[in-house]
Amino acid sequence: MYPKSLEELIEYFKLLPGVGAKTAERYALLMLDTSEEDIQGFAKALIDCKTNIHTCLICGNYSEDDTCLICQDTSRNKRIICVVQSAKDIIAMEKTREFNGVYHVLQGVISPRKGVLPEDLNIQSLMRRVDQGVDEVILATNLTLEGETTALYLAKLLEEKNCLTTRIAHGLPMGGHLDYADELTLIKALEGRKQMKND
Amino acid sequence: MYPKSLEELIEYFKLLPGVGAKTAERYALLMLDTSEEDIQGFAKALIDCKTNIHTCLICGNYSEDDTCLICQDTSRNKRIICVVQSAKDIIAMEKTREFNGVYHVLQGVISPRKGVLPEDLNIQSLMRRVDQGVDEVILATNLTLEGETTALYLAKLLEEKNCLTTRIAHGLPMGGHLDYADELTLIKALEGRKQMKND
Repeated sequence: MYPKSLEELIEYFKLLPGVGAKTAERYALLMLDTSEEDIQGFAKALIDCKTNIHTCLICGNYSEDDTCLICQDTSRNKRIICVVQSAKDIIAMEKTREFNGVYHVLQGVISPRKGVLPEDLNIQSLMRRVDQGVDEVILATNLTLEGETTALYLAKLLEEKNCLTTRIAHGLPMGGHLDYADELTLIKALEGRKQMKND
Repeated sequence: MYPKSLEELIEYFKLLPGVGAKTAERYALLMLDTSEEDIQGFAKALIDCKTNIHTCLICGNYSEDDTCLICQDTSRNKRIICVVQSAKDIIAMEKTREFNGVYHVLQGVISPRKGVLPEDLNIQSLMRRVDQGVDEVILATNLTLEGETTALYLAKLLEEKNCLTTRIAHGLPMGGHLDYADELTLIKALEGRKQMKND
């Protein structure tokens, strides 16, 4: 019993991740109370985002130009490459404000189950970048089975190269409780233990 | 470090109710993976919804025409009017598929605190409809202090009219547990108790 325009908008909101019928309805109804200007802006932003954003020719990050803002940034250390599964991971990493190197997006992980083989990933372009001379490659694929497999595969390939290859640390997350942690995390946390320093 | 187009889209998603920075980000990132066609459709649906949807001249419901689908429906009983606070409540009522009358949207409730007085609500138009002859007016404002005040105010006005005035029932919600119910709900549930029938 919705007017047709409203029903259509609800259907589109349902495309969003984790948005069911109820939430889509709330979103659409709010749009009715939103100013004409904001609606026009929202619609334009949707189209602009799709039209303007491509992947960086160097690293595969989201970008409006041929190369992304990070690759363009002369203050970043181009000799440290952090390898991630997807461009979304770059956003997470950047929020830490801790990393001053550059990135390389694999656009996936090796997964025989899903039919994703090494040649489907941006591995060749990574090797070309490494050959141009880098000091360190940080493997920051997810700590899942597939992410680990991919990291091991890349580590093997990078063995012959003249660079340090590292893997992000495993362990308990900050604020993590031992009794909530799964066994594997605890094993990795033990394995990765470090000597406490007395300053 | 987002491309500008992406940042803008995220800001617009933040307009949605209950959507913070993190969720807006997820929504915007998903849009990058959505087909060109869906994006165009989404943008159009937003604008269409704003442009095409007005309030029904009779009841105040959302409508694309002068009068809404419910007021136009000849199978609905025009002699029973259900009075609600907002057009959103009609959607909730319609989902029950139990009510075959028509609606009247007050566009708010009496709230001296927020400066909303009876003359700010669609009460005059309701009285005109009642004067044209109805059998029953169901007061379905929310069971809040302001909703109750408004219901009492309308009941008083309707006393002189030649129609039955009813209020939706108070009580425990379906599946409700006594030990989770607040006092007032329990009191209302007791007051509204009904004799059990032995069939």
